[in-house]
Amino acid sequence: MTPQQIAETVGKLVAERDMAGRRLGVQLVSVTPGGCVLRMTVQPDMVNSGGTCHGGVMFTLADSAFGYACNSFNRVAVAQQCDITYLKPVAVGTVLTATAELRETAGRSSVYDMTVRDEAGNTVALFRGLSREIGGEIIPGLGG
Amino acid sequence: MTPQQIAETVGKLVAERDMAGRRLGVQLVSVTPGGCVLRMTVQPDMVNSGGTCHGGVMFTLADSAFGYACNSFNRVAVAQQCDITYLKPVAVGTVLTATAELRETAGRSSVYDMTVRDEAGNTVALFRGLSREIGGEIIPGLGG
Amino acid sequence: MTPQQIAETVGKLVAERDMAGRRLGVQLVSVTPGGCVLRMTVQPDMVNSGGTCHGGVMFTLADSAFGYACNSFNRVAVAQQCDITYLKPVAVGTVLTATAELRETAGRSSVYDMTVRDEAGNTVALFRGLSREIGGEIIPGLGG
Amino acid sequence: MTPQQIAETVGKLVAERDMAGRRLGVQLVSVTPGGCVLRMTVQPDMVNSGGTCHGGVMFTLADSAFGYACNSFNRVAVAQQCDITYLKPVAVGTVLTATAELRETAGRSSVYDMTVRDEAGNTVALFRGLSREIGGEIIPGLGG
Repeated sequence: MTPQQIAETVGKLVAERDMAGRRLGVQLVSVTPGGCVLRMTVQPDMVNSGGTCHGGVMFTLADSAFGYACNSFNRVAVAQQCDITYLKPVAVGTVLTATAELRETAGRSSVYDMTVRDEAGNTVALFRGLSREIGGEIIPGLGG
Repeated sequence: MTPQQIAETVGKLVAERDMAGRRLGVQLVSVTPGGCVLRMTVQPDMVNSGGTCHGGVMFTLADSAFGYACNSFNRVAVAQQCDITYLKPVAVGTVLTATAELRETAGRSSVYDMTVRDEAGNTVALFRGLSREIGGEIIPGLGG
Repeated sequence: MTPQQIAETVGKLVAERDMAGRRLGVQLVSVTPGGCVLRMTVQPDMVNSGGTCHGGVMFTLADSAFGYACNSFNRVAVAQQCDITYLKPVAVGTVLTATAELRETAGRSSVYDMTVRDEAGNTVALFRGLSREIGGEIIPGLGG
Repeated sequence: MTPQQIAETVGKLVAERDMAGRRLGVQLVSVTPGGCVLRMTVQPDMVNSGGTCHGGVMFTLADSAFGYACNSFNRVAVAQQCDITYLKPVAVGTVLTATAELRETAGRSSVYDMTVRDEAGNTVALFRGLSREIGGEIIPGLGG
């Protein structure tokens, strides 16, 4: 299997198992080794008390993207630390896209950058995550 | 109205309007000026692909606590930047408690520390949030 | 004056006034609107107790880059929050390069990404900073 | 040796070897298992281009405190990720105190909170650091 095939095979499994992402209607658009694109529409029950998209919902979308990306090599990795900066309030009905990119790897630790954008292409949140490989494969025997 | 009464009155309104928190079954245990305690049980549809509580769910719980705390003075505040560190995977069925505390205020900016614990009192995640007051009252005329 | 000329004119002034950067031997390689490149050699008196480059020294280099970049428009901006991830220990004698890039602007707030690399081009630290414009010009009347 | 004696013995060694801290005139006031207090006076050559204490200098002070605290058990630990929030500009001549406290430990990872205050007791910066034990003792055979 090529790295791309591994990423897609693991991605399908993650998509099935990521119940919190599914609950929010998160859809996997594409996945590559170390990266992915997800999409989600902000629903009326996803708002905070101010009536705009809850920070936790944007975080969950970006964190799901982080999950696809850091598991795309078929090596089990967990999130250690994440930070998010909010740039723009997001209204109900907005279609959000989250893009994940591997920035750097050092031993078992890696840094991924996630960007959340609205339909107009405006960045609404920036998310950076630190992952750590803890040993083992997501799909044993698949390679990676 | 005393600051405590203001915090409770605003807290009730936030509890009604925080749809993303309600969707997760987040319950307001108590609120004080600058602080609060929330509770939530991890459900089977809140897991990540590894089968433990999704980081976005823990973040949303802590972020809701941040929301109650930073709005408890009846002055409209928004989150600018948040970071979370995960310390322990959390199983389905766990009752999580999130505690919010105001650490420091400087002009319109404040730093809040949120701590997420399981029933045994073990800390499972630490969350720090930077808020900014943007002017206006949550409940106009209430004071604060 | 073009934006590039403004960035260079302000850059010269910042280079003179950034005493903490000068103390570490930080040199301005280039500056553009929203970005810059700095260089510094790790000296024997810049180490931590483990004998490698002190995290605070790498931070100061990256933070100086942040300072050049977020002031390059001749509008006074201050750092609000910064985070750094260390990827590799750095030995005495290493020539470090810090690159600053503007990622996003939202109102008076902006996010900049700084990357610190060694001579071999390996990334040794990633730094993200949130700035806020507080009004006023660095060089009054210059434009920007 | 008691944990307190171990912390003090390692602290003395760290104080000798932390050249970047010494260069800034950082002084160790006290050290305990998992914590410490440091002190430093802001000198004219520690400013940024705005004439106030450089963010990198405040970071270095807090990061040195992090170093004492996370090595106080005589187990070699390194910083993985740190974030700092600035609350107040600091003038030349100010005596800064940095306090480090262990917040949580999970396996080999720990979170420490550092607080930087001026003489009046005002918090000027909050710093959170994630450390990781990498095996080995600072002073072999000392215990811990």
